[in-house]
Amino acid sequence: MGETKYLKDIKSPGDLKKLPMEELPELAKEVRELIIETVSRTGGHLAPSLGTVELTIALHYVFDLPKDKIIWDVGHQSYTHKILTGRADRFHTLRTHGGLSGFARMSESPYDAFTVGHSSTSISAGAGIATGKCLNGDCSKVISVIGDGSMTAGLAYEGLNHTGDLKKDLIVVLNDNEMSISPNVGALSNFLSRKLTAKTFMDWRTEFKGILSSTPNIYKFFKKMEESFKAFVTPGMLFEAFEFQYIGPINGHRLDHLIKTLENVKNAGTPILFHTTTVKGKGYEPAEKNPTYFHGVGSFEVATGNCCKISGAKAPSYTNVFGDAIVEFARENDRIVAVTAAMPEGTGLTSFHDEFPTRFFDVGIAEQHGVTFAAGLAAEGFHPVVAIYSTFLQRAFDQVLHDVCLENLPVCFAMDRGGLVGEDGPTHHGAFDLSFLRCIPNLTIMAPKDEDELRNMLYTAVNHNGPTAIRYPRGQAVGAPLSEKPSLLPVGKAEVLHEGEDVVILAVGRMVCEALDAREKLAEKGVSAGVINCRFIKPLDMETIAEAVKKTPRVITAEDNALMGGFGSAVLEAIQEAGVTGVRVFRVGLPDQFVEHGAPGILRAKYGVDSQGIVDAAGKLLNDFPLKSNG
Amino acid sequence: MGETKYLKDIKSPGDLKKLPMEELPELAKEVRELIIETVSRTGGHLAPSLGTVELTIALHYVFDLPKDKIIWDVGHQSYTHKILTGRADRFHTLRTHGGLSGFARMSESPYDAFTVGHSSTSISAGAGIATGKCLNGDCSKVISVIGDGSMTAGLAYEGLNHTGDLKKDLIVVLNDNEMSISPNVGALSNFLSRKLTAKTFMDWRTEFKGILSSTPNIYKFFKKMEESFKAFVTPGMLFEAFEFQYIGPINGHRLDHLIKTLENVKNAGTPILFHTTTVKGKGYEPAEKNPTYFHGVGSFEVATGNCCKISGAKAPSYTNVFGDAIVEFARENDRIVAVTAAMPEGTGLTSFHDEFPTRFFDVGIAEQHGVTFAAGLAAEGFHPVVAIYSTFLQRAFDQVLHDVCLENLPVCFAMDRGGLVGEDGPTHHGAFDLSFLRCIPNLTIMAPKDEDELRNMLYTAVNHNGPTAIRYPRGQAVGAPLSEKPSLLPVGKAEVLHEGEDVVILAVGRMVCEALDAREKLAEKGVSAGVINCRFIKPLDMETIAEAVKKTPRVITAEDNALMGGFGSAVLEAIQEAGVTGVRVFRVGLPDQFVEHGAPGILRAKYGVDSQGIVDAAGKLLNDFPLKSNG
Repeated sequence: MGETKYLKDIKSPGDLKKLPMEELPELAKEVRELIIETVSRTGGHLAPSLGTVELTIALHYVFDLPKDKIIWDVGHQSYTHKILTGRADRFHTLRTHGGLSGFARMSESPYDAFTVGHSSTSISAGAGIATGKCLNGDCSKVISVIGDGSMTAGLAYEGLNHTGDLKKDLIVVLNDNEMSISPNVGALSNFLSRKLTAKTFMDWRTEFKGILSSTPNIYKFFKKMEESFKAFVTPGMLFEAFEFQYIGPINGHRLDHLIKTLENVKNAGTPILFHTTTVKGKGYEPAEKNPTYFHGVGSFEVATGNCCKISGAKAPSYTNVFGDAIVEFARENDRIVAVTAAMPEGTGLTSFHDEFPTRFFDVGIAEQHGVTFAAGLAAEGFHPVVAIYSTFLQRAFDQVLHDVCLENLPVCFAMDRGGLVGEDGPTHHGAFDLSFLRCIPNLTIMAPKDEDELRNMLYTAVNHNGPTAIRYPRGQAVGAPLSEKPSLLPVGKAEVLHEGEDVVILAVGRMVCEALDAREKLAEKGVSAGVINCRFIKPLDMETIAEAVKKTPRVITAEDNALMGGFGSAVLEAIQEAGVTGVRVFRVGLPDQFVEHGAPGILRAKYGVDSQGIVDAAGKLLNDFPLKSNG
Repeated sequence: MGETKYLKDIKSPGDLKKLPMEELPELAKEVRELIIETVSRTGGHLAPSLGTVELTIALHYVFDLPKDKIIWDVGHQSYTHKILTGRADRFHTLRTHGGLSGFARMSESPYDAFTVGHSSTSISAGAGIATGKCLNGDCSKVISVIGDGSMTAGLAYEGLNHTGDLKKDLIVVLNDNEMSISPNVGALSNFLSRKLTAKTFMDWRTEFKGILSSTPNIYKFFKKMEESFKAFVTPGMLFEAFEFQYIGPINGHRLDHLIKTLENVKNAGTPILFHTTTVKGKGYEPAEKNPTYFHGVGSFEVATGNCCKISGAKAPSYTNVFGDAIVEFARENDRIVAVTAAMPEGTGLTSFHDEFPTRFFDVGIAEQHGVTFAAGLAAEGFHPVVAIYSTFLQRAFDQVLHDVCLENLPVCFAMDRGGLVGEDGPTHHGAFDLSFLRCIPNLTIMAPKDEDELRNMLYTAVNHNGPTAIRYPRGQAVGAPLSEKPSLLPVGKAEVLHEGEDVVILAVGRMVCEALDAREKLAEKGVSAGVINCRFIKPLDMETIAEAVKKTPRVITAEDNALMGGFGSAVLEAIQEAGVTGVRVFRVGLPDQFVEHGAPGILRAKYGVDSQGIVDAAGKLLNDFPLKSNG
């Protein structure tokens, strides 16, 4: 991007305030260009951030950050905010390791009031911050910016409900683009969109004036009025039921309207719901036309919007293999139904939806409900597959435990994005699933080594009479050919891939391929390594593991999950329960810290969750516990 | 209870239907007597179940179970349902080990359509069941019965929102007693109670008729109408925004009204919100007067309602010690604020609320919001203490991880009811907290051995600049005297209580006392056992543990948490990381299954999580790994 006229001088929001209002649209144009140009290289949440350029400028023009606080829900719309708060010169580092986060992070900037990534936290956090300010006798302002899609989550509702009751000075900006990631679902969403067609008071007056003057029949008049009453319930009334003062809807791309209205409500001293309508992808035609694709996008060509193809033959993504497999199995098995929480594309359910529309359920951003809803379907004899990102299943931990597993209901959790996801960082890594799920009784947990095994695991899961979870990585699979027919895997049985004399590597999921690589590297050094694909994190194959560790008392466990309570920890439990002593174990996995953002390869190398990490582990084991026979 | 006239012949809901409607109030009387008499002995959820006697009779009179399905939210109001569905003769076994559960359980009866215990699952589950029925071409009915308190939870909102969109045949019965456990909080609750004072259409007609006849000024008329418009938004309109058809409110103790209205709506084929008003504790004066006390109650004298005192000197409960300690520390430290999710009494925060009303926040049944709200308060420099039952923190797992721990915010989770709670059973045991929390980076996790240590841990927590969790058991503490002043415990340091030669017991929480008992029993057998109170599950005292296990390679870990991924698993990780081999470990803790209901002593003995379990573990270790020196 070339020299800018306005942006170059904006080092903080204070500089923005020096501009006359009429020049702000020019600034918006520059910001938009910077975002498009940067994201075309780094990838990122383009469409959400393009939709909020004017809104962000208006907020910074009216409010005084960092004294006043803005909480960006999810934070994928916060690029303009980053650019205006002293981070324009580092904006080119967006989503790269060591560079700017793709979301708001308290640790990144004093202008980021709350760390975000998962949806629908902003009202609750804003309520907490506003309450804290009030206790501190601090009259500065708190603004929570939340998309209409995020409003389907229970957390947002809980936040609204409590905030209305608290009566604190909190402005909730409802950024209404009639989209979350995909178009919204839910009755409330239907209701909100009705606003556009609902009669206004003005229409109503005209209509009744007519009735009154022509047939002054009081009874008929009131009858008609009663009937039409429901149609007049506006979104405003809904929010007013929550004791919010409702303002809007305001065109979210009109800087003058936004600024004027925000100035008016700034000092209301009561909960405000400021409803603004924006266009997702605004100002970049390809994104306006296809906001779902451009919600979160890889690198692309600015001129056309076409994605930059990675050259070379490419294996399918795990997501696509899952998507094809569920369709394949659902053709044979009419008990299979699919549930997603606002992620039909991301989880690969588009084909399923097209082929089985009545068996497909998008519940909106509502993971808790999605899981309990699936439990209800299972109680009626269906076998629901809940397709969800690992990190978002955290939202439904209690529902998995209490509503699905307690009665051993046959629900399959297809957990995409298990392990490190890369550029989205700590809020999105699927780093904890093996740990938090492992303690739940009745749940069978698997992780495939490749796409063929993913298909077999899904097949096994939908034929298993109990709850299952399959976790697989983000992105491209390994290129394993799919078998002609799927196989039922024996539940709780590991697969011994290679025998070995010196060390044995117990691996799950994508770490199996890393273990195979490590085995070759170790062979070059004269070390013989066995590799076992454990397949099942729970139930663990106690027998195979006990046998292997008795034979080879140098054991490496390998997972791309937190070491605390994860797969390696399960192996330690198994060794202890088998009563085998004299075994040295080294656990390869994620350390007890939140892993920052960055390219997956960089992160894997940094934390040793790759073949080199396994090779290094073998080196340490052999050092501590030298080979007796040939040492 | 003596011979009954009606109840004795009701073996299933079919028998109920044979009674003429006018005799049903007599049946209700008998049911009520049976409930009062039984619960006075067994303890249980008296007030909720007394409130729904007529509603339950009406539902069974109108609908055909088990073909039609009723989902009881929480299930603490389902006693009448149990009595009418063939379980009257076993009702005296309520909440006893091997007897009837205090909640609805699919595994207990085909009449229990969904297993419940935690709040606000019924709409989601009902939506799933209704959707399943629809896919199966089954036209039978689904009814979700939910209290107004449960409506504050996000899950209920997510369920409503999706159900309205699905347009399935689901009847949601809103059992409105203006109470959850304590009086409700939240803007929506205020809104719902406004209904009682809101003008009806009839009032409105009369008023405007007056205006029209006296001053037929159209402008004034419409002006007035606009102004009063908001006051006319009824609860019905709110639910209609969710595309539910609203019916009510109906007096929930008038069987004739209930039955007639339910008959009318039975075949509507669309989502129905059936609003009924009931009195919590209805028909038993002490419970009507004090519904909070009688929400969940121990044994009591029927004539007076006085609780049956347990004789002998009694240690205070952990809850009370916590409640006193937080008040004590809050007097000195104005950064301490308290958050509860509808449990001010249960978590011991009543005194705090009375002394620091502006620093006390009851968010309603909204654990997710409660935690994120606390994170917001922490971001403003406060140190919130979230007082919550262990089992209910499961609802906020993602918020603990993502909103509190990711940025290392100083929030303390005071987790009451950790371990086995007893009669409330598998939905309420705090059996998983050490496992699901242990994988979260930055979180410090502690468990006190007695009430003095609980006070010190709370003191340590509110002086620690990061997130902490303290888990302590339900009920009476051990009787340890409180020190004059609280002490700061060194974070991550264990307390060596006894050295021992033959085995070493590493224990946390209430298992420390069991370990001390076990030590004495072992001493009688000539076995010398060391006891270490680990105090911190995370960070674990690696140094002390490594030293102890090197000295005494027979190690018992003791916890009243799931063995999968729990404290014992952490010890295995520590031993592995310290590189100590040749150590035999036996882990005492809860097995990988859901633990049923029953008196805590029975359950502890059954699963060996007591001193005898530790003694047995020592026996096994000594058998497998005999003493060399003196063996």
